[in-house]
Amino acid sequence: MATLVTSKKGRTEVKKQAKKQSKKKFVYFFGNGKAEGKADMKQLLGGKGANLCEMTNLGIPVPAGFTITTEVCDLYYKNNKNWPAGLEGEIREHLARLEKAMGAKLGDRNAPLLVSVRSGAAVSMPGMMDTVLNLGLNSDVVQGIIIKTENERFAWDSYRRFIQMFGDVVMGVEHEAFEHILAAKKKQVGALQDMNLSAADLKDIVRQYKKIYKDHTGEEFPQDPIEQLFKAINAVFGSWNNPRALKYRELNSIKGLIGTAVNVQSMVFGNMGETSGTGVCFSRDPSTGENVFYGEYLINAQGEDVVAGIRTPKPLGVLKKDMPVVYKELVGYRDKLEDHYRDMQDMEFTIQEGKLYILQTRSGKRTAKAAVRIACDFVREKVINEREAVLRVQPKQLDQLLHPTFDPKVKKKKIAKGLPASPGAASGEVVFTAEHAEELAKKGTKVILVREETSPEDIAGMNAAQGILTARGGMTSHAAVVARGMGKCCVAGVSELEIDYDQKLFKAGGAEVREGDWISLDGSLGEVYLGQVKTAEPQLDQDFDRMMKWADKYRKIGVRTNADTPHDAQVARKFGAEGIGLCRTEHMFFEADRIIAMREMILAETTEDREKALGKLLPIQRRDFEGIFVAMDGLPVTVRLLDPPLHEFLPQEEESQQEMAKVMGVSCEVIRHKVHLLNEFNPMLGHRGCRLGITYPEIYEMQVRAIVEAALSVKRKGVTVHPEIMIPLVGTLREFTFLKERSLKVIEQIFAEKKDKVSYSIGTMIEVPRAALVADEIAREAEFFSYGTNDLTQMTYGFSRDDAAVFLEHYLALEIIDRDPFQSIDTVGVGKLMKMGIEAGRKTRPNLKVGICGEQGGDPDSVSFCNSVGMNYVSCSPYRVPIARLAAAQASLRQKK
Amino acid sequence: MATLVTSKKGRTEVKKQAKKQSKKKFVYFFGNGKAEGKADMKQLLGGKGANLCEMTNLGIPVPAGFTITTEVCDLYYKNNKNWPAGLEGEIREHLARLEKAMGAKLGDRNAPLLVSVRSGAAVSMPGMMDTVLNLGLNSDVVQGIIIKTENERFAWDSYRRFIQMFGDVVMGVEHEAFEHILAAKKKQVGALQDMNLSAADLKDIVRQYKKIYKDHTGEEFPQDPIEQLFKAINAVFGSWNNPRALKYRELNSIKGLIGTAVNVQSMVFGNMGETSGTGVCFSRDPSTGENVFYGEYLINAQGEDVVAGIRTPKPLGVLKKDMPVVYKELVGYRDKLEDHYRDMQDMEFTIQEGKLYILQTRSGKRTAKAAVRIACDFVREKVINEREAVLRVQPKQLDQLLHPTFDPKVKKKKIAKGLPASPGAASGEVVFTAEHAEELAKKGTKVILVREETSPEDIAGMNAAQGILTARGGMTSHAAVVARGMGKCCVAGVSELEIDYDQKLFKAGGAEVREGDWISLDGSLGEVYLGQVKTAEPQLDQDFDRMMKWADKYRKIGVRTNADTPHDAQVARKFGAEGIGLCRTEHMFFEADRIIAMREMILAETTEDREKALGKLLPIQRRDFEGIFVAMDGLPVTVRLLDPPLHEFLPQEEESQQEMAKVMGVSCEVIRHKVHLLNEFNPMLGHRGCRLGITYPEIYEMQVRAIVEAALSVKRKGVTVHPEIMIPLVGTLREFTFLKERSLKVIEQIFAEKKDKVSYSIGTMIEVPRAALVADEIAREAEFFSYGTNDLTQMTYGFSRDDAAVFLEHYLALEIIDRDPFQSIDTVGVGKLMKMGIEAGRKTRPNLKVGICGEQGGDPDSVSFCNSVGMNYVSCSPYRVPIARLAAAQASLRQKK
Repeated sequence: MATLVTSKKGRTEVKKQAKKQSKKKFVYFFGNGKAEGKADMKQLLGGKGANLCEMTNLGIPVPAGFTITTEVCDLYYKNNKNWPAGLEGEIREHLARLEKAMGAKLGDRNAPLLVSVRSGAAVSMPGMMDTVLNLGLNSDVVQGIIIKTENERFAWDSYRRFIQMFGDVVMGVEHEAFEHILAAKKKQVGALQDMNLSAADLKDIVRQYKKIYKDHTGEEFPQDPIEQLFKAINAVFGSWNNPRALKYRELNSIKGLIGTAVNVQSMVFGNMGETSGTGVCFSRDPSTGENVFYGEYLINAQGEDVVAGIRTPKPLGVLKKDMPVVYKELVGYRDKLEDHYRDMQDMEFTIQEGKLYILQTRSGKRTAKAAVRIACDFVREKVINEREAVLRVQPKQLDQLLHPTFDPKVKKKKIAKGLPASPGAASGEVVFTAEHAEELAKKGTKVILVREETSPEDIAGMNAAQGILTARGGMTSHAAVVARGMGKCCVAGVSELEIDYDQKLFKAGGAEVREGDWISLDGSLGEVYLGQVKTAEPQLDQDFDRMMKWADKYRKIGVRTNADTPHDAQVARKFGAEGIGLCRTEHMFFEADRIIAMREMILAETTEDREKALGKLLPIQRRDFEGIFVAMDGLPVTVRLLDPPLHEFLPQEEESQQEMAKVMGVSCEVIRHKVHLLNEFNPMLGHRGCRLGITYPEIYEMQVRAIVEAALSVKRKGVTVHPEIMIPLVGTLREFTFLKERSLKVIEQIFAEKKDKVSYSIGTMIEVPRAALVADEIAREAEFFSYGTNDLTQMTYGFSRDDAAVFLEHYLALEIIDRDPFQSIDTVGVGKLMKMGIEAGRKTRPNLKVGICGEQGGDPDSVSFCNSVGMNYVSCSPYRVPIARLAAAQASLRQKK
Repeated sequence: MATLVTSKKGRTEVKKQAKKQSKKKFVYFFGNGKAEGKADMKQLLGGKGANLCEMTNLGIPVPAGFTITTEVCDLYYKNNKNWPAGLEGEIREHLARLEKAMGAKLGDRNAPLLVSVRSGAAVSMPGMMDTVLNLGLNSDVVQGIIIKTENERFAWDSYRRFIQMFGDVVMGVEHEAFEHILAAKKKQVGALQDMNLSAADLKDIVRQYKKIYKDHTGEEFPQDPIEQLFKAINAVFGSWNNPRALKYRELNSIKGLIGTAVNVQSMVFGNMGETSGTGVCFSRDPSTGENVFYGEYLINAQGEDVVAGIRTPKPLGVLKKDMPVVYKELVGYRDKLEDHYRDMQDMEFTIQEGKLYILQTRSGKRTAKAAVRIACDFVREKVINEREAVLRVQPKQLDQLLHPTFDPKVKKKKIAKGLPASPGAASGEVVFTAEHAEELAKKGTKVILVREETSPEDIAGMNAAQGILTARGGMTSHAAVVARGMGKCCVAGVSELEIDYDQKLFKAGGAEVREGDWISLDGSLGEVYLGQVKTAEPQLDQDFDRMMKWADKYRKIGVRTNADTPHDAQVARKFGAEGIGLCRTEHMFFEADRIIAMREMILAETTEDREKALGKLLPIQRRDFEGIFVAMDGLPVTVRLLDPPLHEFLPQEEESQQEMAKVMGVSCEVIRHKVHLLNEFNPMLGHRGCRLGITYPEIYEMQVRAIVEAALSVKRKGVTVHPEIMIPLVGTLREFTFLKERSLKVIEQIFAEKKDKVSYSIGTMIEVPRAALVADEIAREAEFFSYGTNDLTQMTYGFSRDDAAVFLEHYLALEIIDRDPFQSIDTVGVGKLMKMGIEAGRKTRPNLKVGICGEQGGDPDSVSFCNSVGMNYVSCSPYRVPIARLAAAQASLRQKK
């Protein structure tokens, strides 16, 4: 178990902040427009305490209160859980100030003051420590509240909640004991929900709660509010070191704190009649970003009533008519807070008997569209500069802008949840085979392809479908990778999906879905819905373009794309890609005319036969490359030579094998035998990548020829081209040298044949851990490195991305890992290896170009990591290019800070 | 392409050696019992030149000659391939000395001198550079030789060979041109072999060779021996930088040499009548090591006649009678050379007209038995000390002593070759299933189990068989690992093996072998023979024990064993194991009574059901551990918790699944479904090791309980026990902590239950690359590390050991890698990671115990590496323990040097 860690730095800061006061001060007051602390005193007052002071000093009407410093918490522990001398006096003194400020008194039934007692450390630890609300209630005060609010039910319910919370938090009475009574009462009176209980029911519950309290603690429930208060303060101190909080600090590496502050703040009530009310508001429209005051409120209500949805809140405009003075005041605070915090604010307010209180303000959550618009507006309004604007939009959010979305207001029937493998929204009829998907799509039917998992043979069908749903495979499974490349919605690894191909149906979430039924997928959430849900197409506006331009201005690291076709290349270029970082050649082999030649190549028994088959593939590959080079005119294109094991190109099922036998004019036995021979226990670690290139050099020679001939051919047409030939899966210098030498021979031969040249480079992927370890050697010959972080992560962790979903789910739930390392680079382990590789490589070749082409290349945190280790570029699927551009700019701006 | 690298050190050394002479000396003479150089002048004279000087100075009658220094070679290249001034004069001067010493003259038909011209650099580069023999022959001299030898055929054959060699080596005439003429002549006269050609035939060939020479070079074949000599010297200089030699130096990292020396030495002939002869001899018996002079010779013969096997050589004893003076002289040289080189010598000698010449001496190759005996004898004779004796035996050779062997004299019919997966020799009847093997073995039949590959289900059958033969899988495949553990002979990965289980036969090397036919396996060579070959059982003598005792005295690193049963543990302990470094618990689950409970556990749908099944396994495991702890009384035992994926415990074939369904009382569908669910794309990177322990904590909890209860139980019987609980496949600290915490809870509970304690430790395997990268973190909690280099190598290279054989074969042939990294640790890549991990781990925990339990733990080079990086112990299969002990001692002694 971790123990409390305090750092020198934390203590020094506290002392400095405390020193400013002439004598040691334990308690800081805020209220009536003045506070004794300010925002930069977080170490001493905690985040919440410092912010309450800050707002108070701004003239915002925050309910008054006081903060007991973090230093007191430290002393409390050092002093064997006793208060330091003088603390009690200071608390009583500040309580008196508070009572005066609020015109109410703790325990006074005529002017009752209720307070909240909350924790608040210098670093936010949401939900980890304890809170007590409604403190001050007792059998006497509850009567006063009834009179004040004219709401007997509310008063008893508040009292009941207070006893439960106090009993649980302060005295350690298991809350099940209270829940049990509540449940019994509901059963007794036939109430389905808490709100069906009457005032009398609640009053009876209070009676029973008090008994429970006594049974468990041996004492009566304290009627003295001061006793309540002191006990609650100690409970908050105690919660600083509860196992949950310790674990949270350990997991989040929160160190150097000396304790929590305790905030005692008066509670205000919006349910004290028709001059009271409560509401939430945004300083701008959080959905569109428009600069209009936006919000809703309820008269004579508590905050929870707004959430509960029993009464319909009114739009803020109505308040202008209902309470014009209050409204005007609110608008003033809105302006003040937005000006002060220089961001769109999400505020909670309560009106108690005509007096407006602001309970909380924070930067408001917003849609991507709003985020971009607000940031641009702020720049136009000269509130922030471009740099700040770039930092204001979460890169991942941009996905919303680039893909179709469902209308969030439409009710959907969710039947399953899987991995959000490729963002976007799609509806279509269910089909179970790629062929069927193609067939129906040709007729204009929208389809969703549902498969156990997909394989390269399914690509055409995936392309024809609106979206893809798989039962197996992770975020970097075939389905996920290909779908992201296509910008197509995909939900993967839905383990509860039971597909019955024979019956042409699947079961999930109690539903049975048959071929032809409509379903809808949200690829951003990983959710599957029954039926058709309307989608909205994405629209990119001028503010988006502006934001992207700023991003490009401030980022240092390049952004390329992973694209295998001219179409993908064009899409990516439109999104701002500065080249292709990964062009996979194998996908090109699956189309009808190619797969036959590819299979002839695989079945060939001699080098001659293999070369003959490769001869058929050469012109096809050359044409593909020409198209890509033209689309990327002026930009570099990295082409990876054949990577997957050959068995991926052969059919695994009996039926398809027979078909193939017929087409190729050989016996099915020949094919079965070849499939058997190529079968591997662990194909990921098998005969693939440069290992194929070395055992069958003629394959890579054909590919190099296709690349260079294509480059020369488009060059003649005026296209500027710089092919980068990339050898995959290299683990030793000699593998690379062997293939580089052969490639150079082919290239020189072509240059001689064509009497023309073109600039090119030859580099390698770093995806086998060993490559990173011996990067200094490999860089002697390799002109560039591209980190294949999918494989590198697989091998460094020993996690097969196709199989790991089963236990990664557990790992995430148990917090064994914080994030799926296939989504975001594991900077501690895999990242260390990457850093070593870059440093070693550049030691040998100082100008070594280094990029990343793994899936994580489009993940903002990973982009930031790649920026920090000095990579030249990241490469990601076309639809993630804008995300990467923004993330790169933010990384660069944050690094400067 | 690599370029010539010369290091400062090399040059300095040459200058120093050259400086000893007052004037720059290009040529060094040796002959007549005196030489101008000595053994330590290798840099200047090359290895061969320096040794010829050394032997001459010892008074050994070496044929006289002279050496042109490596410095001349350097000058030759610097001087645009011209001789330095003065060289020609020095050569002529030394030639004259040589002629005088030999009483013969170059080109003199009455007293013809023939010489050899050979390369010789400071570091041996066998076969990489050029040699010319019989130089000095021309149309005139050949007649003199005929007279001298009275052997016309020999004279013409020598001349023919000289023309061919000179033409090829010196003038670059393709040797195919010569071979073509030879072949045509043989066809013409109906000769099957060269030796069937008559003197006349050879004379005619000489005529044709000369024509070829002229056709290709445009010159007549040179008749002037001086011209021959000078050209040959230049050819040797030229060969220093031929592509073969450059590549060899690059691959072997030979740097710092400035060139080759050239040795011109007189040739002597053993075929000059009945007072001439030739032979080879060993200073001691190379087979038994006995101190007797051993060898054979032929009168009136050339060296090649001894090898050709046409005439049967006579044992050396006969020479004693035939030529007593020569024999006595030879015995004197034998003693002198053995004394000087302090090792058993293998000498070649020639008697020319009654005069004895020693052509070569070197340390003699010997059997393991002889190596041990000779080393021990030398210590007894005070020739060497114990340290040197330990260094004299090759650790790998010991395998011969520990396993049965075939009589090397028996002729065998080899039908296939695979990997030498587990050493030893075995004969038996072919069976194709493990069950059948068990059945027949019970009846006393000796069987060889032949399988495509083996799986854990086959273990009992493997144990029953004499040897195992598989068609697939590498040196660390299941078959190989298990066989080595059992000390059983195994040949694995014989790719040419075509097994037909249905027909119960296999085909290989043109033979068809049916069930019941006898075959024999040599597991040390990886060879398969037809029929029964007699084997000899190993016998360990006192000298072996002595050698092992010395090894233990000088080694620093501990040697443990990988053992899963009490029997294996006993065997290993007998061989000197100091504990168990790896006890795999999974093998324990395969026996009949256990597999059912194991399968119940796997089929369990709830934690309760799983715990019930585990409850059945607990007493069984406990008994197993008790047996092992007793066998290892006083020594540490590292137990690895369950590692393999669960599907390994379920039958994959329909038939076995049905059987299992019957036994378990469930439907076959249930089993099929479970097998399907557990099926993985890459099981090596899947749900196994600690990942299983985390998803099903109750499995490891049961195992920890079994280990600790067993330890307490044997402790009560007076056994000293220290269990080390090892968690496999850890990649992150949190995985380890999660499982350690749970284990501690179980252990504390047992201690409380039993009111007794036992010392133990909890550590982890380092086998996932990430574990080595974050070893500093993991060492915070782990008390020991054990490197699982099988998995670590798999993941660091990205090579599946079950699949890599296909391309590793190519890799070795193409010299992409020098060695199979699964046999010997890849020190550059995997080793770097290991070193990092040890250093990082010890930074956190300075006394961290580190070992290795991968297959390489028994490989001498890997033992040396483990010693150099400061490991505490290596662990290997029982039969490799003596090898590891000796290798460890050598590593330690070499490190001291």
